[in-house]
Amino acid sequence: MPSISQRGLDMPASPIRKLGPLAVEAEAKGIKILSLNIGQPDLPTPPEAFAALFNINRKVLEYSPSDGLPQLRRKMAEYYSRYDINVDPGQIIITSGGSEAVLFAFLAALNPGDEVILPEPAYANYVAFSKIAGASIVGIPSSIESGFALPSIEEFESRITPRTKAILICNPNNPTGYVYSVEELNQIRGLCKKHDLYLFSDEVYREFCYTDKPVISALQLDGIEDNVVVIDSVSKRYNECGIRIGALVTRDKKLHDTVMKFCQARLSPPLLGQIVAEASIDTPELYLQQAFEEYRRRRDFLLERLNSIPGVYSPMPTGAFYTVARLPVENAEDFCRWCLSDFSYEGATIFMAPAAGFYSQPGLGRDEVRVAYVLKQEDLERAMVVLRKALEAYPGTKKQ
Amino acid sequence: MPSISQRGLDMPASPIRKLGPLAVEAEAKGIKILSLNIGQPDLPTPPEAFAALFNINRKVLEYSPSDGLPQLRRKMAEYYSRYDINVDPGQIIITSGGSEAVLFAFLAALNPGDEVILPEPAYANYVAFSKIAGASIVGIPSSIESGFALPSIEEFESRITPRTKAILICNPNNPTGYVYSVEELNQIRGLCKKHDLYLFSDEVYREFCYTDKPVISALQLDGIEDNVVVIDSVSKRYNECGIRIGALVTRDKKLHDTVMKFCQARLSPPLLGQIVAEASIDTPELYLQQAFEEYRRRRDFLLERLNSIPGVYSPMPTGAFYTVARLPVENAEDFCRWCLSDFSYEGATIFMAPAAGFYSQPGLGRDEVRVAYVLKQEDLERAMVVLRKALEAYPGTKKQ
Repeated sequence: MPSISQRGLDMPASPIRKLGPLAVEAEAKGIKILSLNIGQPDLPTPPEAFAALFNINRKVLEYSPSDGLPQLRRKMAEYYSRYDINVDPGQIIITSGGSEAVLFAFLAALNPGDEVILPEPAYANYVAFSKIAGASIVGIPSSIESGFALPSIEEFESRITPRTKAILICNPNNPTGYVYSVEELNQIRGLCKKHDLYLFSDEVYREFCYTDKPVISALQLDGIEDNVVVIDSVSKRYNECGIRIGALVTRDKKLHDTVMKFCQARLSPPLLGQIVAEASIDTPELYLQQAFEEYRRRRDFLLERLNSIPGVYSPMPTGAFYTVARLPVENAEDFCRWCLSDFSYEGATIFMAPAAGFYSQPGLGRDEVRVAYVLKQEDLERAMVVLRKALEAYPGTKKQ
Repeated sequence: MPSISQRGLDMPASPIRKLGPLAVEAEAKGIKILSLNIGQPDLPTPPEAFAALFNINRKVLEYSPSDGLPQLRRKMAEYYSRYDINVDPGQIIITSGGSEAVLFAFLAALNPGDEVILPEPAYANYVAFSKIAGASIVGIPSSIESGFALPSIEEFESRITPRTKAILICNPNNPTGYVYSVEELNQIRGLCKKHDLYLFSDEVYREFCYTDKPVISALQLDGIEDNVVVIDSVSKRYNECGIRIGALVTRDKKLHDTVMKFCQARLSPPLLGQIVAEASIDTPELYLQQAFEEYRRRRDFLLERLNSIPGVYSPMPTGAFYTVARLPVENAEDFCRWCLSDFSYEGATIFMAPAAGFYSQPGLGRDEVRVAYVLKQEDLERAMVVLRKALEAYPGTKKQ
């Protein structure tokens, strides 16, 4: 039997799915799983999205253009203009989820051996996509003590080598919930300009910023217009992760045209998802406001509860719907595993994502977990009770 | 501004889209374009597919599992059993179109520098996907004189090197319409067994075989069960190219699990497409029979007309809905371009795909075009009149 590729061997297993089989086993035993591990929101998809779907009046579900339906690209440009982001529909490429946008950006921009600097902890699949492109992720750790703020610019500069091709940020950040300040983004802007680097900015959580300070997109940074590639997605914004509609936005014509070659090879993004996405962007403002308020409430609730558990600490996240918390254990992965395989409280247990998988450097984040607040408050409350009880019962919990 | 990757520069432009801008210009001048260039069928998507869509009763359009909905994978296994192909739902991975199945098969199986032997002319995007994996396509030309039959086994053996990792076939074939015989497939089976090669078999046109001889899937070849990877798609079968639902089928557990790492990195295939695909597989047999009869009628009509034009020759295709025809011109791409930019007859012109783009070896297929019979007979008839008139008027047409 032929052997698989080295790339296949090297592909990291997804840290948020690694413990999945244990959750399935626990469920089979009748235990309710409180899933804090994945970013699958429980909020409803907008009714306008379903209406568009139910009103499809076509005989054939045919290929759409490789860069997506023109009407969707126009609608997205309109959406950006609400944020004072000026892009032309021709600078927007619709992709199969934000995932494909990351992959195509990497494939079009990075040569094997190239390096991408990434503040960590970070979304784990970036590493997977960099492996496909043959490039390396160079992680710069941010720390829970500083609330996961951007590492100092000196830290970045010290990582720059002749192979450095790009800086990658996720803003608002998954997994930390940190939102970069205008000052921090301007520091990154300076670096990209000075060293002629691409700036890949994953902004899929744009709607969810709970800070009073100004929040901007990388597309609003002056002087690096041709360096910026924004990764976007309607998944989290409109609670329609399953439709797989994302976007790659760049003003760099050369990069745009190169990404288009990859798009043409895969023919087209999903048609039905595009119809849903277009209608979703027309959803009344109230929909997004309600989602925002709901997440903010959950965040406030979750953080208060988390930090009241002895030995647990999480800084207050200012965006997205995740937080990274430190637990009073040596090895959070062992603890997460134990929660699924050996523990339950009043018929339920918790499924959290060990944070070590969000760092490229071994040893970092070993006592941290990512917690997603995508469950309704009642379930979050139950999850926090279970976490408290689990830490009380776990043999490895450090004495406070 | 940073430079794009070498891979990006090397990515081939799609041969069927290369002349697209000329078609747009011609249309803007009011000329009707008879599109014989792309495999976008005009037949209706099954009503059952729309019914499933309109009956969706979910609040959230959420992620599906990375390998696809279990009910769709079960349905596909049932579908295969109708063809006496025994596969388990756990051996089927749902992908974003057949395209992603090809890409993931390559990424999981091929190292940079590995070689894949491919009878040509062939679907052009295989080359694009091999570039992403860093592998090389080694083309073995088949010829129009032999009706594009499988090249001799000696030809294959002479191409095998220590870097050869796989043989790739498309059966029924795009672009030639050739269907491999059981004998031919057994020859390939012998080679894969002898040299321990993967056999990637793209079978998306399975339903469309107009031959009386037995037709089998690569999954029915004995003794190479762990070498076979079938690429499949519901796109052509149910006229729903836009939903982007394909599949990768393999009994090799190691390859399956490796492909799953790539699947997890991109989270999930499109949910709505999966719902449509599942319902489509339940479409009454009559639907596929009618499509089959329609394509067969068109094929018979098209081939009769093509071969009656002085200097034009096409062998009779036995599958899919394409044929490759030789034209009495030096350079078919120039002729195709001229048809779009300089010619029309009674307000219409034809858009064909130059076949040179389906061969990796420069110089091959220069006087050939791929013609898709995805238009209704009336339009095909008009297209054949336009082709005849165009060849009469074209300055470069060879005297018969």
